[in-house]
Amino acid sequence: MDKKDINYNALFIGDKAENGANYINELTHLLHSHMGWRKNYIPGDMPAISEEEKRTPEYEATLQRQHDVLTEVDRRLREGTIPWMSAGRYWGQMNSDTLSSSMLAYSEAMLWNSNNVALESSMATSKMEAEVGDQIAGFLGYKKGWGHITHDGSIANLEALWYMRQFKSIPLALKEVVPDTVKGLSEWELLNMSVEKVLDILKKLTPEQIDAVKAHSSRSGKNIQKLGKLIVPYTKHYSWLKALDITGVGIDQMVQIPVKNDFRQNVDILKEKVKELASKHIPILGVVAVVGTTEEGQVDEVDKIVKFREEMEKQGVYFYIHVDAAYGGYGRALFIDENNNFVEYDQLQDMFKKHHVFNRDVHVDKHVYEAFKAIKDTESTTIDPHKMGYVQYAAGSIAIKYESMRNVISYFAPYVFEKKTAEAPDMLGSYILAGSKAGATAAGVWAANKTVPLNITGYGRLVGASIETAQQFREFLKKLQFNINGKTVKAYPLDNPDFNMVDWVLKIEGETDLQKTNELNEKMFDFSSFYGSRVYSNLFLTSHTIFRKDTYGDSPVPFIERMGFTKNDWEKIGAVTLLRAAIMTPYLHDPKTFEFYTKSIANAMEKKLKEIL
Amino acid sequence: MDKKDINYNALFIGDKAENGANYINELTHLLHSHMGWRKNYIPGDMPAISEEEKRTPEYEATLQRQHDVLTEVDRRLREGTIPWMSAGRYWGQMNSDTLSSSMLAYSEAMLWNSNNVALESSMATSKMEAEVGDQIAGFLGYKKGWGHITHDGSIANLEALWYMRQFKSIPLALKEVVPDTVKGLSEWELLNMSVEKVLDILKKLTPEQIDAVKAHSSRSGKNIQKLGKLIVPYTKHYSWLKALDITGVGIDQMVQIPVKNDFRQNVDILKEKVKELASKHIPILGVVAVVGTTEEGQVDEVDKIVKFREEMEKQGVYFYIHVDAAYGGYGRALFIDENNNFVEYDQLQDMFKKHHVFNRDVHVDKHVYEAFKAIKDTESTTIDPHKMGYVQYAAGSIAIKYESMRNVISYFAPYVFEKKTAEAPDMLGSYILAGSKAGATAAGVWAANKTVPLNITGYGRLVGASIETAQQFREFLKKLQFNINGKTVKAYPLDNPDFNMVDWVLKIEGETDLQKTNELNEKMFDFSSFYGSRVYSNLFLTSHTIFRKDTYGDSPVPFIERMGFTKNDWEKIGAVTLLRAAIMTPYLHDPKTFEFYTKSIANAMEKKLKEIL
Repeated sequence: MDKKDINYNALFIGDKAENGANYINELTHLLHSHMGWRKNYIPGDMPAISEEEKRTPEYEATLQRQHDVLTEVDRRLREGTIPWMSAGRYWGQMNSDTLSSSMLAYSEAMLWNSNNVALESSMATSKMEAEVGDQIAGFLGYKKGWGHITHDGSIANLEALWYMRQFKSIPLALKEVVPDTVKGLSEWELLNMSVEKVLDILKKLTPEQIDAVKAHSSRSGKNIQKLGKLIVPYTKHYSWLKALDITGVGIDQMVQIPVKNDFRQNVDILKEKVKELASKHIPILGVVAVVGTTEEGQVDEVDKIVKFREEMEKQGVYFYIHVDAAYGGYGRALFIDENNNFVEYDQLQDMFKKHHVFNRDVHVDKHVYEAFKAIKDTESTTIDPHKMGYVQYAAGSIAIKYESMRNVISYFAPYVFEKKTAEAPDMLGSYILAGSKAGATAAGVWAANKTVPLNITGYGRLVGASIETAQQFREFLKKLQFNINGKTVKAYPLDNPDFNMVDWVLKIEGETDLQKTNELNEKMFDFSSFYGSRVYSNLFLTSHTIFRKDTYGDSPVPFIERMGFTKNDWEKIGAVTLLRAAIMTPYLHDPKTFEFYTKSIANAMEKKLKEIL
Repeated sequence: MDKKDINYNALFIGDKAENGANYINELTHLLHSHMGWRKNYIPGDMPAISEEEKRTPEYEATLQRQHDVLTEVDRRLREGTIPWMSAGRYWGQMNSDTLSSSMLAYSEAMLWNSNNVALESSMATSKMEAEVGDQIAGFLGYKKGWGHITHDGSIANLEALWYMRQFKSIPLALKEVVPDTVKGLSEWELLNMSVEKVLDILKKLTPEQIDAVKAHSSRSGKNIQKLGKLIVPYTKHYSWLKALDITGVGIDQMVQIPVKNDFRQNVDILKEKVKELASKHIPILGVVAVVGTTEEGQVDEVDKIVKFREEMEKQGVYFYIHVDAAYGGYGRALFIDENNNFVEYDQLQDMFKKHHVFNRDVHVDKHVYEAFKAIKDTESTTIDPHKMGYVQYAAGSIAIKYESMRNVISYFAPYVFEKKTAEAPDMLGSYILAGSKAGATAAGVWAANKTVPLNITGYGRLVGASIETAQQFREFLKKLQFNINGKTVKAYPLDNPDFNMVDWVLKIEGETDLQKTNELNEKMFDFSSFYGSRVYSNLFLTSHTIFRKDTYGDSPVPFIERMGFTKNDWEKIGAVTLLRAAIMTPYLHDPKTFEFYTKSIANAMEKKLKEIL
């Protein structure tokens, strides 16, 4: 193996704390370094706490109290936390062991408590955040881009909608403030101006004119209802509802696109919808493509949406494209070589082999490849380090195609910043939705990205392992069968290998009642989550989801037919309950480990089924 | 000293890492406990990482790489971070040493990586967040209240405006959906309905009706421009501009109230403004009172605003009151006894004495007392643990007066939650602006509040120390005088003892040019921040602020006259630059330490002045 390729087992504390001693050593080392720094800042200064004071009863009582509180924290955490880190007993939410480098960097940087809202308060960690932003923007293919860490994916999506709303409103503001710049354009043309064109016009204005234009933009509260529709797939995350609500755009402006049988957004219907809106002269604020849907792990065809936008632009219809890759974004590392170039599709297999990404021959769908590739042609992307970046909570991020886009939402004119006056030092807070932000988060994500490169040698290997394990798990499920008191119970996985999510249903052979099958799976979930029993003694843990007719349409029909139900059952019941597992554990990529744990959980499931049936 | 009273010197790592060994011990103890938990979850399970693998070159190379990255993180942090923790050399932003208990709890809880968005993912830490929310709501006097941790104060303010917008719009939605509930009310009456009345009506509706009403509220995007004005003081934080922008209410809806000479919001002008708007039938979305302004530390007269609202309600005019106590909120602990009762004003001194809060006789202004007391009668409050809660970033919070208020912004009907179906477990994410959130933050704030009670025995002592130190610093400055090459330089502090912020100006005796004095103070700031030199060898660090005529009006005139300038100078220059220090260090409360460090920084300032002049 190439030394450049990470061995990811070394990068986590480990399911059985195999690297626990190393973690404690590294942290102790860092803590001592920090303590030395405190002691040696102006070495001759008087210490504020004397040895005498430390021996007083009050001092000791306070330390005792602190110790008692921490003991209680520890007790509660041990009792009430899910064992995500288990190599193979946890098959549920998007959580697993997280990167030691990120947690170690956080634990140390926290002691310095810098605030990345402004450079003045965080020279080291603000620089790290700027580097992380550049890394992420570059990783997504935004060559002139910019990015920053957000609290989470919901806030990143909210910020994206804020961008869309502002950009759509600027041309109307131009018409009011500097009408010459948009002379001869109709309102419809103004509402279909591209991001590039808006930036182009703004570039030619004076700082005072830019301020005036921004004051007349949607931030004034005016014209928001004129700006049109936000188009999202039915498989969108619910944060889009909140974002529409909070930004004042309104949930009434949401247009939802059905998914196909493979649970990817139906781009044909999207096209029809866009054309229909255009024919009625209703503008489109933006289109959201999801890369890694939260329930199915599916990847929308970003490339087709980008191509369609090109076509429509020729007809005078423009819409902003945002990619919600909160979950799936890091998957792009699978297609980026060690020199950080996005490789050709026909070179993928060679690269995978060279870097020992897969154990077996894993086929990556061309469509998935093209979708990831096309992200570079969209305007912004949400991507969460705290999901497939294996960074601990809370760390989301957003990247935009052009750095200059941020001036459209910012709160100080760029010229003030260039001067770097004391009055307006470089303030990240001026360009983002949030205010104060922990420098420690930037240190954590920075350390993760430095330890695990954003290409095939790092995250590519890690994400690849999770995708291959998911495929193996689907195959394992297909063969899974239990005999419980004379009844045969079989597992039926959905077969959508876009990413690392596995959804599946347990069903009694010959059962014709979909409702009863749903109840069986609800029960299995109850028995396999914190609802049912104490998690620490639970031998199999999972999560679940429900596909309903009102959001999924008839997309699940082929799947339920495969289980032996009919379209009629679907019409009648209108919902199917699935068990759901984001396969994030890096540990099951090893065949021996996979075998041990799948055998173990099969036993655990059998026991639970005996209790349930 | 009573054992209940905390000794705060024991609660921090210490300016010279006096408690560093204890910190490392406690953390090591917690880490070992966590490692044991990992190892003992299903003790017979196969470890995924073998000793053999750990000895492979790839494994070792990866560990080496991780170590190198952490070494670089450490190097950068040591080079590029401000020594906030210094007992008396840092006199700047709202930052200081932070509570060990909070950092220790965070460092451990992070290893479990729970996500407080939903109970399913974070049983222990979600419970802690619920307890923290109750503690904070109770602390503010909201007896039926509710609260939660936010990313920061800006997000809390944004959430507050979201509440205001929703509440103002609900009556219009009621009229559309269930007109009988508001029969006979005019639009003006609907737009002046109290929060209590809205909740009252909602209580009587079916879940389906509530959903329909919410769908017609401002979340639809409709009617937002009808909802009226947000009134804020000129001393508001800039996050209010962003909040107006982001919520679609619009910056055009902001009405700013001037401050008085003491830099508190001028409530007389507020009253006039409200009456003027009412006479024009322009509704008022809400009024913001600031408790602890970021530049001056001033406390708006919340009590007078509450009383005024009562009067206006009788005349049919209602407005929501939000307290932005992001900075000053924890000050309320000064007025709460060990049994968590808010004490009478005339009992304050006895309580202070009993708990050894102050070294000398410190007078707390009745107005400040009344302002803090009246918070209980407002609708919501922003209060940041990561400011005067001495918790590390990022941890803001918001509390609301009635728990049921949260149903107005939530994304699932309450009845679903009561059933606690698998489909909708108790999801904090449904009631707040953000999505994913670190359980570790809740563990940190919980540990802080348990170690340092939210009353006079805990935060009261800590905040009291900072207030007394600020008063002493003002007195020190009043006597400060330098003789530099025949010129006498004197210090002029603002004298607003509401809280722990000290703003001051250095001025050459006889200087009649305000502009030159501003430049002198700009220079002093440049020499005393990261702009001027490497911070780690800098003997005095501070921050600064500028009061401008366009936001401060003539409020600074008495101050600049005290320095020997005239009103005419103010008219001409229109700005005064001040050095600014949030006195958060707990260490200077000790008179010996105070003397050592004030003498030391006076020397450092003298040296800098010699270079500047």
